[in-house]
Amino acid sequence: MDRTHFKRRVAALRERLKAVSADTAWIIQPENRRYLSGFKAEDTQFTESSGSLVISDQWTVLVTDSRYTTEAENEALGFEVITLKKGLAEGFPEVMARVKAKALGYEEDFVTCRLYRDVEEKLTALSPPVGLSPLNGLVEDLREVKDEEEIKAMDASAGMMSRILDQVIPWVSPGLTEKEVAWRIEDLARKAGADRLAFPAIVASGPNSALPHAVPTDRRLREGEPIVLDVGVRLDGYCCDMTRTVFLGEPTAEFKRIYAIVRKAQLAALAEIHPGVQSDYPDGTARRIIAEAGYGDYFGHGLGHGVGLETHERPRLSPLKPVRLKENVVVTVEPGIYLPGKGGVRLEEMVVVEKGGPRILTTNRSFYEFSP
Amino acid sequence: MDRTHFKRRVAALRERLKAVSADTAWIIQPENRRYLSGFKAEDTQFTESSGSLVISDQWTVLVTDSRYTTEAENEALGFEVITLKKGLAEGFPEVMARVKAKALGYEEDFVTCRLYRDVEEKLTALSPPVGLSPLNGLVEDLREVKDEEEIKAMDASAGMMSRILDQVIPWVSPGLTEKEVAWRIEDLARKAGADRLAFPAIVASGPNSALPHAVPTDRRLREGEPIVLDVGVRLDGYCCDMTRTVFLGEPTAEFKRIYAIVRKAQLAALAEIHPGVQSDYPDGTARRIIAEAGYGDYFGHGLGHGVGLETHERPRLSPLKPVRLKENVVVTVEPGIYLPGKGGVRLEEMVVVEKGGPRILTTNRSFYEFSP
Repeated sequence: MDRTHFKRRVAALRERLKAVSADTAWIIQPENRRYLSGFKAEDTQFTESSGSLVISDQWTVLVTDSRYTTEAENEALGFEVITLKKGLAEGFPEVMARVKAKALGYEEDFVTCRLYRDVEEKLTALSPPVGLSPLNGLVEDLREVKDEEEIKAMDASAGMMSRILDQVIPWVSPGLTEKEVAWRIEDLARKAGADRLAFPAIVASGPNSALPHAVPTDRRLREGEPIVLDVGVRLDGYCCDMTRTVFLGEPTAEFKRIYAIVRKAQLAALAEIHPGVQSDYPDGTARRIIAEAGYGDYFGHGLGHGVGLETHERPRLSPLKPVRLKENVVVTVEPGIYLPGKGGVRLEEMVVVEKGGPRILTTNRSFYEFSP
Repeated sequence: MDRTHFKRRVAALRERLKAVSADTAWIIQPENRRYLSGFKAEDTQFTESSGSLVISDQWTVLVTDSRYTTEAENEALGFEVITLKKGLAEGFPEVMARVKAKALGYEEDFVTCRLYRDVEEKLTALSPPVGLSPLNGLVEDLREVKDEEEIKAMDASAGMMSRILDQVIPWVSPGLTEKEVAWRIEDLARKAGADRLAFPAIVASGPNSALPHAVPTDRRLREGEPIVLDVGVRLDGYCCDMTRTVFLGEPTAEFKRIYAIVRKAQLAALAEIHPGVQSDYPDGTARRIIAEAGYGDYFGHGLGHGVGLETHERPRLSPLKPVRLKENVVVTVEPGIYLPGKGGVRLEEMVVVEKGGPRILTTNRSFYEFSP
């Protein structure tokens, strides 16, 4: 990404600001910050912000503290960097005066009640007071459709993760612990040059595979059981998310059947991914196939989600709150069946929504062709 | 930790609830949840909660979704697990009825404005309506003073990290990149059995060492420059945080001098750490020594912070908002001098505040004895 990308994104934000009751946007969410400015710092803890953007029609300011001043100046090239000494709320009056804000839009999804209260107190004490109004998903909406550079970045991220699985899946063998496999994946990701994993790797075997968000344990892999590998790298800021379920030796008839149903549901859902489709439609298709096979109670999560600078972003592919899929969004398609205490199967591809159908970025092809 | 620990902690929370205008506590912050219940799930993204505790005089409930039901039932032994199907806000009326809440205390520091608005809308629609009032740091206050088991856990965590540095520091050599060193540290941490690193390892060399929160780069280590290693593992949930600055070969006279000043400031501050001292007092001592040596403008952060289930927790050792240090809190003591564009030196110990003075948990002794 060069400076023109950030300029174009800031211009798009300004355009959207016109439609809301704020003349200035206060952006604190780390990926939103990075998307608009190039400032890469992450937040080390939930309540520890490494900075905020303040953007109005004429101004682009990055507010931070002394820990991040140099990084901000190096990375956020189009932004004036203001270093605050006593915290965000204390410094806001100065910043508001600098950008001549009258009404400040804040990210309702990320600003905590406490920070809001502290900032509001300072802003209402100004003369004239600066008002606060919620911005819901303004930047997240911009991030939903990926530009050419972003799709290249996600292709690179998915390619890296796929090649790692190409190497890991044949290596996986009975006796290894889930943690050892997870660690091998992370080690290969670092050595390949990933920023880091996009999320903690899930390596879940046997009954653990029935937990959609299992954390790797010291459990040793055994023959015949499902092993769910749900993994992704983050490369140049962009995340990949993919899942394969593998068996060592011959699975039971039940797991073969479940696997075949999940794969059938996935392929049917993929066939329905194209620009303009309602996001609940492919979800419904996958869900129906799973329900008709008798496992309707064992697919508890949505079909998929958008991916980009975050692992989970817009749009969601779920029965709740359907939206229309746009061209060039990147989404996962990941049905699963989970039998508590026994085990589960999940298969996940990450695809770009294109006119000709979904373009699959996750190139690893470790799928079984069992008959349902 | 066994069930008696959690019972005692819940009892302490209930005692504190009596002093605030809420009969029921809603706890969503991941480490607060874990501290009270044993439920270990982390939140995968800022806006993706893996659960909430709802605690009143008679009830201990863990509210989650289907992804975490099994884990919650296995880990949070004293809690009734309720699995919500349509999100937290939608499910809250049912939960409030279950625990017979009249006034719900929420964590103002962690609940976002959006979640608050959604929950408030549901609760005011009940008859009679359930009110919401902020709980500020109720659980964080409980977590500040560590019990015997927790101090053992932190000793183990600091010991593991120290032994890794014992091994890494002699190995560090010119030509290695910052990323390679960071990765070696993380690899050793995993192989030693850490849950994960407590925070992304900082390995910052040359000019990068002037950035207190530097991210490791592909820059290669060179002779004579400072290399800041700020690292910690998380073991059984408990974090360690420690920093060493190392030189390969002979540093310049300026860096020797800076190092000696930082070490002197650290030792002087450590000498003042005991139960009852105001937290700004050791900070002021370190700051004065650094200022008197002519580097007052180059120590931009506070002296230290509490550590526990989180890397940064109460109390803060800073000039702002001083508090009295209690016995058995665990804090870092980490002065630094940062010369923009040139480099920096930071030294950090993690100690238990005990009657006899600070007990240093970070056992690695890689310090230089330069003359100031």
